[in-house]
Amino acid sequence: MLPRKSVLNIKPYKPGKPIEEVKRELRLKDVIKLASNENPFGPSPKVVSAIKKSLQNINRYPESSCFYLRQALAKKLKVKENQLVFGNGSDELIILALRAFVSEGDEVIVAYPTFLIYELAAQIQGARIKKVPARYFKYDLKAMKREVTGKTKIVFIANPDNPNGTYVTKVELEMFLNGLPEQAMVFIDEAYFDYVEERDYPNGLDYISKRVIVTRSFSKSYGLAGLRIGYGVSSPEIIKYMEAVREPFNVNSIAQAAAIAALKDKKFLLKTKRMTSAGRKFFYSEFKKMGLRYIPSVTNFVVFEVGKDASLVCKKLLKKGVIVRDMKAWGMDTFIRVTVGTEKENKRFIKELKRIIV
Amino acid sequence: MLPRKSVLNIKPYKPGKPIEEVKRELRLKDVIKLASNENPFGPSPKVVSAIKKSLQNINRYPESSCFYLRQALAKKLKVKENQLVFGNGSDELIILALRAFVSEGDEVIVAYPTFLIYELAAQIQGARIKKVPARYFKYDLKAMKREVTGKTKIVFIANPDNPNGTYVTKVELEMFLNGLPEQAMVFIDEAYFDYVEERDYPNGLDYISKRVIVTRSFSKSYGLAGLRIGYGVSSPEIIKYMEAVREPFNVNSIAQAAAIAALKDKKFLLKTKRMTSAGRKFFYSEFKKMGLRYIPSVTNFVVFEVGKDASLVCKKLLKKGVIVRDMKAWGMDTFIRVTVGTEKENKRFIKELKRIIV
Repeated sequence: MLPRKSVLNIKPYKPGKPIEEVKRELRLKDVIKLASNENPFGPSPKVVSAIKKSLQNINRYPESSCFYLRQALAKKLKVKENQLVFGNGSDELIILALRAFVSEGDEVIVAYPTFLIYELAAQIQGARIKKVPARYFKYDLKAMKREVTGKTKIVFIANPDNPNGTYVTKVELEMFLNGLPEQAMVFIDEAYFDYVEERDYPNGLDYISKRVIVTRSFSKSYGLAGLRIGYGVSSPEIIKYMEAVREPFNVNSIAQAAAIAALKDKKFLLKTKRMTSAGRKFFYSEFKKMGLRYIPSVTNFVVFEVGKDASLVCKKLLKKGVIVRDMKAWGMDTFIRVTVGTEKENKRFIKELKRIIV
Repeated sequence: MLPRKSVLNIKPYKPGKPIEEVKRELRLKDVIKLASNENPFGPSPKVVSAIKKSLQNINRYPESSCFYLRQALAKKLKVKENQLVFGNGSDELIILALRAFVSEGDEVIVAYPTFLIYELAAQIQGARIKKVPARYFKYDLKAMKREVTGKTKIVFIANPDNPNGTYVTKVELEMFLNGLPEQAMVFIDEAYFDYVEERDYPNGLDYISKRVIVTRSFSKSYGLAGLRIGYGVSSPEIIKYMEAVREPFNVNSIAQAAAIAALKDKKFLLKTKRMTSAGRKFFYSEFKKMGLRYIPSVTNFVVFEVGKDASLVCKKLLKKGVIVRDMKAWGMDTFIRVTVGTEKENKRFIKELKRIIV
């Protein structure tokens, strides 16, 4: 069987290695993972206890509409219930937007580098992809706007961006949106929203409209990556079409119960933000001491430059039980991305890095 | 924003009402659901305890490849690990097959009536859909084969079928596959495989090839509908292309842990099969007493005819706290589908049905 033309040359996404896999392969006992921008402080005990209560019903299909979660989230975000769509991770919302709005041959605009799934999913959908290079590790929205044509269906904006950890400002976003051709949807991915402390960072919800959608995730700041749940907020019209292409039971019932509990646990979120901010600063000061350049980040990860083939450094770290991510997949061969871990994990990473580099 | 042409007229799938929803809307306390072919005996206590052990890691992304589950299942089914693909419910495997192999304008063949998602998902993909009526409530494979042309990319065969509860035999399947044009993929959906006791029922795994895929689910006989996990078995080539269009973290980590435990719990599966078979026979004998026609079923549900507008009967049952499914969505206006429940639930359903009908 031959697949669709657009599928023939897909190179599947390579996720960060799971801890279990590294333990298996390298026969290591004590492995830490600072590779996938996960929350090292989670899960919240309140979430775990909510899940335990929901286990007796896993033989039943989940609520198709995420009924209770939808109510809770609409209230929290001050939007209407028909302005929300839920996904099997916010990854799935990317697919839903493409399935709803992009036909074969339509144009999609992405930055380079950025979250790889935008390009991969658009390629699968059969879109023509325009890649716009970042400038000084930041989205170049002016250049991206110049690429918009009458055939452009979606522009993806990760704000903040992964892997660079930078963000676009209110002014930049407003200038971008102003006068943009009508048929182009703007997909603002705010997976790392909760980590940002900067005042000129735009809250995407202030810009939702008939053509702007904002997505967020429970995987990062809420610590629920394993359960797969994220959501999109937009106008009822956009949501209606994304709902039309959604599988009826795409969000499992455990994730729904966990997300409701997670929204209530403000302490956990605050702790996560505080510890992440402290960990970032610790990395910065250690990188400076080692003479390593880094990209200032507003997220729970930091990209730094090792001045030589980064994948070799990553391999050496791996042998010591520390998983981080080289940036080869993004064409940044001398860079490494490290996720903020617990205080202990951060120190161990720096200690091992010093041994290898200095 | 206008969606893709194929999305404009989608009528979203309407799932059976969840118990909680009926309780909310009708202010009822004691509601039973025999509407979605769920497993009323689940979840297995062994599964629940395996899930509890896995909860501490839900802040980490799931294993993208379902590593341990893949090993366990390959061993059980006696296939190679690269012959398996896992989905967010077996629903997702339908989408993956369409995304991998069907371009806009390609042909897809489905029966009518059958599981509604085949048609819905194919419509979203932009396929031309040929619907072939069932004969005497059974798939008419001869007629379906006659519809296959050089443009046919997938033929969907639910075996056993939902909603009719009937199956195609070994001989029928072999005659269908024999001499079928090369480019047409045959998608055999065996979601209800475990319930079938008939000797002439073909085990799809005996027919997997470069163009035949078999899918199964943990939602029914294993009682894990809420967690969303199913799998496909085919040749490594077919699997490779479906993996290429799969989201990297489509199966949550709880579902993976639960499925591994479920595979080991043979007692639970045996109990489920035994009780389901007994429940089916109880329904048959009660329908006979009431003079109601029914379609003999090899699954955990039975379709029967009430001789008048079935949706009215369903509404009356609903008011009594019994959720079943009228067959309007399939154009069978005088029929109802009821899922086998626990002994107590089955009796309550029959009691309420008698009050309404007799």
